Amino acid sequence: MNNPTAAMLVIGDEILSGRTRDSNMHHLAGELTKHGIDLREVRVVSDERAAIVSAVQALSVHFDHVFTSGGIGPTHDDITAEAVAEAFGTTAPQREDALKLLGDHYASRGIEFTEARKRMARVPPGAALIENPVSIAPGFTIENVHVMAGVPAVFEAMVAGVLATLAGGAPLLSQSLRVMRGEGVVADPLGALAEEFRDLSFGSYPFQQDGIYGTNIVVRGQDGARVDAAMVRLVELFGT
Amino acid sequence: MNNPTAAMLVIGDEILSGRTRDSNMHHLAGELTKHGIDLREVRVVSDERAAIVSAVQALSVHFDHVFTSGGIGPTHDDITAEAVAEAFGTTAPQREDALKLLGDHYASRGIEFTEARKRMARVPPGAALIENPVSIAPGFTIENVHVMAGVPAVFEAMVAGVLATLAGGAPLLSQSLRVMRGEGVVADPLGALAEEFRDLSFGSYPFQQDGIYGTNIVVRGQDGARVDAAMVRLVELFGT
Repeated sequence: MNNPTAAMLVIGDEILSGRTRDSNMHHLAGELTKHGIDLREVRVVSDERAAIVSAVQALSVHFDHVFTSGGIGPTHDDITAEAVAEAFGTTAPQREDALKLLGDHYASRGIEFTEARKRMARVPPGAALIENPVSIAPGFTIENVHVMAGVPAVFEAMVAGVLATLAGGAPLLSQSLRVMRGEGVVADPLGALAEEFRDLSFGSYPFQQDGIYGTNIVVRGQDGARVDAAMVRLVELFGT
Repeated sequence: MNNPTAAMLVIGDEILSGRTRDSNMHHLAGELTKHGIDLREVRVVSDERAAIVSAVQALSVHFDHVFTSGGIGPTHDDITAEAVAEAFGTTAPQREDALKLLGDHYASRGIEFTEARKRMARVPPGAALIENPVSIAPGFTIENVHVMAGVPAVFEAMVAGVLATLAGGAPLLSQSLRVMRGEGVVADPLGALAEEFRDLSFGSYPFQQDGIYGTNIVVRGQDGARVDAAMVRLVELFGT
């Protein structure tokens, strides 16, 4: 597979403390798969500058794209913009174009454009703005890193905007078979089948239902005919 | 804070492809917080040996504990045991004590102990077994890395077993205030308060309700009296 690769960086103490359950990872994973981009790694780090800088540096070197979530709001603990800028040896001052977007928005609604709100205009020089149709404050793309908000509605809108601009690979196709036998029974024949179809990937996901062990087998690949052929073999092996 | 630190490593293509929503991260985060251990980083990697080895090596050096989830079942793509062993320069052969646990279990139920099921006895020499009260196949602890199953019921039981053996720090206390004002209004006074209470951490989490912007403010710290004092100031600033 020669699809573009991606990593995600989630920034947020509230996830690491167990207070909030992250939902952006699951959303991004599904969207990237549909778009033919392979999500290879996710990291969740705290709102600490050093942790963000080193994660951005490590991930941006190893993957074609990095998507970040969180830490671009107005409060004192929102430090993602500066940290991502620092990872690329630059800074994130309040930028005129972002200030104008936000200023016009607040003026039209008769809301004061406070110093805190101006923090949402921090964007590195040369970075491209990512539109925020939900609450205006933009994200940005610097090099191969797409910096987006953590609020799910905003994150999702920004992902849609970014993906529309990126070249994807062939979408990954998948089919699955639900087998009412445990993984221990399925494992040996499945392993042999995986050897035979080395261009596909085979996943097995155990579950229990009414006290009976079952396994979901998922076949993934870019060639639909090959996936179909593997499914025929699976049904022969395990029934429907 | 001098609490022990921890990282989590989630192994699983099914999460990166968006097929499955991980729930073990949220569970572990909450349990560690209650236990006084600071979860500082989470990584999700695919079922690839090199990715697992390098993540285990990086995380085990930087944090006091590493908790892994996934990849210790019987199928061909379950390679976590070997990969974690390799990260510590050793191997994970099928071990006698684990084989006996599993063999007795299957014998008592009249189930064949297949080669695939024997894969669940792969444990590095010298590692301590982690009990699995749900489905017997054990996890293990090697050095500071606790290797556990991905199935949530099994993962949760193993976490409970491991945490009972670890020394925790002072539990982190938290209180929160729900304010029906946007983050842009809250940010400046909250930043000033955070400067004043530097021994505590202040998080702000925006939400929308019926079209109105609100903010949950969370104060965390190990000294209950200090958290109380900060809450009094918050109520003065923002009302109840």
